[in-house]
Amino acid sequence: MIYRIDMNEGKYYTDIRVENKLVGGRYMVDWLTTRYMSPTAHPLSAESVFVVAPGILAGTAAPCSGRLSVGGKSPMTNGIKEANAGGTAAHKLGRLGVRALMFTGSSAEYKVLKVCREGLTLEPAGGIEMMTNYDAVAELQRRHGEHVSIILAGPAGVMKMINSGVSVTDTKGRPCRVAARGGMGAVMAAKGLKAIVVDDTGSSMRKGAREKEFAEACKAAVKLIKEDPVSQIISRFTTNGSIVSENERGGLPTFNHRAGTFGEKAMGLSPNVIMEHVKTRGSVTGHGCMPGCVLRCSTILNDEKGGYLTSGYEFETAAACGSNLGIGDLDMLLRIDRACDELGIDTMEFGATVGILNDVGLFEFGDADKVMSYLEEVRQNTPMGRIIGSGCANAAKVLGISRVPAVKGQALPYHAARPLKGYGTTYATSTQGADHTAGSVEMDMDFNLDPKGKVDICRAAQINMAFFDSAGMCMFATFINGPDKFVGLFNAMLDENWTGGDLLETGKEVLRMERAFNDKSGVGPDRLPDWLCSEPLPPTNAVFDVPPEELDQFYNF
Amino acid sequence: MIYRIDMNEGKYYTDIRVENKLVGGRYMVDWLTTRYMSPTAHPLSAESVFVVAPGILAGTAAPCSGRLSVGGKSPMTNGIKEANAGGTAAHKLGRLGVRALMFTGSSAEYKVLKVCREGLTLEPAGGIEMMTNYDAVAELQRRHGEHVSIILAGPAGVMKMINSGVSVTDTKGRPCRVAARGGMGAVMAAKGLKAIVVDDTGSSMRKGAREKEFAEACKAAVKLIKEDPVSQIISRFTTNGSIVSENERGGLPTFNHRAGTFGEKAMGLSPNVIMEHVKTRGSVTGHGCMPGCVLRCSTILNDEKGGYLTSGYEFETAAACGSNLGIGDLDMLLRIDRACDELGIDTMEFGATVGILNDVGLFEFGDADKVMSYLEEVRQNTPMGRIIGSGCANAAKVLGISRVPAVKGQALPYHAARPLKGYGTTYATSTQGADHTAGSVEMDMDFNLDPKGKVDICRAAQINMAFFDSAGMCMFATFINGPDKFVGLFNAMLDENWTGGDLLETGKEVLRMERAFNDKSGVGPDRLPDWLCSEPLPPTNAVFDVPPEELDQFYNF
Repeated sequence: MIYRIDMNEGKYYTDIRVENKLVGGRYMVDWLTTRYMSPTAHPLSAESVFVVAPGILAGTAAPCSGRLSVGGKSPMTNGIKEANAGGTAAHKLGRLGVRALMFTGSSAEYKVLKVCREGLTLEPAGGIEMMTNYDAVAELQRRHGEHVSIILAGPAGVMKMINSGVSVTDTKGRPCRVAARGGMGAVMAAKGLKAIVVDDTGSSMRKGAREKEFAEACKAAVKLIKEDPVSQIISRFTTNGSIVSENERGGLPTFNHRAGTFGEKAMGLSPNVIMEHVKTRGSVTGHGCMPGCVLRCSTILNDEKGGYLTSGYEFETAAACGSNLGIGDLDMLLRIDRACDELGIDTMEFGATVGILNDVGLFEFGDADKVMSYLEEVRQNTPMGRIIGSGCANAAKVLGISRVPAVKGQALPYHAARPLKGYGTTYATSTQGADHTAGSVEMDMDFNLDPKGKVDICRAAQINMAFFDSAGMCMFATFINGPDKFVGLFNAMLDENWTGGDLLETGKEVLRMERAFNDKSGVGPDRLPDWLCSEPLPPTNAVFDVPPEELDQFYNF
Repeated sequence: MIYRIDMNEGKYYTDIRVENKLVGGRYMVDWLTTRYMSPTAHPLSAESVFVVAPGILAGTAAPCSGRLSVGGKSPMTNGIKEANAGGTAAHKLGRLGVRALMFTGSSAEYKVLKVCREGLTLEPAGGIEMMTNYDAVAELQRRHGEHVSIILAGPAGVMKMINSGVSVTDTKGRPCRVAARGGMGAVMAAKGLKAIVVDDTGSSMRKGAREKEFAEACKAAVKLIKEDPVSQIISRFTTNGSIVSENERGGLPTFNHRAGTFGEKAMGLSPNVIMEHVKTRGSVTGHGCMPGCVLRCSTILNDEKGGYLTSGYEFETAAACGSNLGIGDLDMLLRIDRACDELGIDTMEFGATVGILNDVGLFEFGDADKVMSYLEEVRQNTPMGRIIGSGCANAAKVLGISRVPAVKGQALPYHAARPLKGYGTTYATSTQGADHTAGSVEMDMDFNLDPKGKVDICRAAQINMAFFDSAGMCMFATFINGPDKFVGLFNAMLDENWTGGDLLETGKEVLRMERAFNDKSGVGPDRLPDWLCSEPLPPTNAVFDVPPEELDQFYNF
């Protein structure tokens, strides 16, 4: 069922039908956004939509299939946006038969939507609007029970800051999984929607249309994922293993993208330190960010006294707020991560934003206290806090900074674009702005500085991911094993006889829809900022030199 | 001669040749910007260009032909930008044989460029960088004499605020004529260029190639302009006459575009009050904004004690900071105008920016003291000052405001787009962002609310203006009498036998070049913001309803 919730009226409708069974997750976001919103409407206006959509396999036993897509139009890129996160909500929504929740209009008073077997209920937010996320979740759990899943806009979203994500509670009920990018927290809050509480009591797991075959396909998929060498590495070392590998190969943005390695200091952020914390503080690795995960790359990290500090602390945060800001101390990073999660802001964008402040004398690399004080300014909604909360590209405009690490208004992720030209190509061409998850390539150490062929591998990766984002499946579980390997899951579940190629056609359709929306809304060109093409990044001294003419071939499919 | 000044080296070159004699002013800005700058380079980086170009007829006796174009890539619209102003500099440059000054690179220390008969000299700015404009000009006049013309970036430009213009001294040596739009002050300052001092000592007026014929053509042009009924009205009532006419017909943006009339309060800003000041304070009307002007719509306005207060106070300022902010007191407006001129910021953009602050409780309509305090924040470079200095669209992003009166990042001018659908069409389709001078239509009272045919009249007006912006001729002198009437001037001056149609082809070429640049740099779509199409503007209750499909036909020429 697709629910259309009119926030002006406070009523919901179930009149939308989508025949195509593969419309879920990202595809669902696109399908609804392109049909129910003008590409030129302001993302924070009542004329925008906000979509929440679990993937095609949500609520089933398929491994790594519980990612939740949220989206609409991004106030950051001005284009279409799908951001996704782990957590427990997607599977619960799947079990409740919810294919999507689409919010239109805007409620003058903040509401909480309760979704359960009996239907949907809009309730007053009742004072939690500006609470930090952990407190807000605790209050919602008090009201609705600890078993519920919660999807919420944090204080940054409620303050309509463009760098605000949508947070989702994890298996421990903590709001540490964030659909972070592109400002969907502000879009959610602009609907007058503070939170969605999902209670799947009384529901049961979705079974395959061809039940036994589906169960077999799930088993096969588990085996496939577990045996994949890259997923094994991620599983063992957490995503923070990339700190070490990127540092080694010169692909770790450091000091506001002025170096590609943090040298020995990067070791302060390496998985080894996390492993130490496991021994000395009771921190946990091998945790799954969502139920049904067999990769389990997530962590739960404690403070010096063994008390809980944060979860969902990933490589991108470590690089954005660590090496990029010249900070090599894990404890500092964990505090920054927690503070960002409390506000509900994107750590990648935040790190980029503080990084550029160095260009105008407002930040010294290594000054973690200053980072925390900027987060406090965000919390207090000061003018400087708002500038930072508006993200890297906007802060640059306000502060007169010309060396801007962003594409289409969204900050570069932290696999460095200059040596890693496949990533660079993804950042340049993605409909989503600079986004590493849109087409992850060069994850293994087998990379080269040759620009040749990068557009082709990037195109394949983006098409692949566009499909798996629609399936609700994890990037790490799927980016090496493509649709051919997983097609059995979809066929058994949905009683079809697709080939892997059919699934890839869906990926292409997703990208085409997004591109068409962006053409009308007016986003920036498919280019990296010029300075990445001329300023060498030590130690490789690479520049991004995939030719513009080749980038222009990206959408030829 | 075209001078290419490399600000990295501090040297200049004269290697650029342009055969086409009609390349001047706006056309020259486009010609140089499209050839010497990547459309994706950052406007405030060393890779951008900053162009200063007098019009084709600069330095001649042709009436109303002394407007100065400045341009490059706009940090506000992200597209190509030409902004022009009156003042005395263009004619002096023309007499010195300067067709253009193009600045590349960036000097680490601020420089002043002296242009005189002997050539070009770069000198240290010597402490004037952050002086307010009147003081900086006084110091430059002390150094170089009172007879020079000065083109300068004000403190806002030096602070790299996106809402900064380039100021030009008028016939009294005051920096009150501003090429205001699109942030060219920041672009100029980003080159390390504080000011250009033009000394035409020893030069003489340019004569026509067919001298006598040109003198006759000048006489005919003077007659034509003087007899034009619209120019007579503007001449008599100043541009502030539009306060009364727009107020009457519901086309005067009031209270942040929530009404189209300011009612009786508009009368506090009417030309009658200015006429009173002429009698009681020694204020002056019938002043020309540039030498050779026969329209003379400019004013010199004194304070209560008869002391000089400001010049170049126009309708757009009166509406932006007056009716739009709920302020109906001329003395307040004059102080705001002067303060904006001192900083070198665009009053149109500034008024729009303060206007939207009302949406988030940061401004009460009518509070002129608050307006002045925001200007003081700009001057002091506080975070809030920077937000305001970044212009309406950026401030909206930072502050989470969704009802944004801007197109392609540039604030709407103050002939209301909803009832005045020809203007609205210009705002939507111009390469320059929302810009009334790009295609002025509906200046007389003969208008209607019918959207039909507006694209056609707007296209004609924009093509016409693109040519006259290249000629350096005033909008008011040319927008009714098109190229057919003035072609004799160009033929006699340049020894050609063009038709008016040939000149219009130049206008088309200008628009095509600009459009091509914008397609690559990535500006917003040719659309007004959605809310202008749905929110009726009292008292006409008009919405902007020129169909999108018709707007898409604009560039079919």
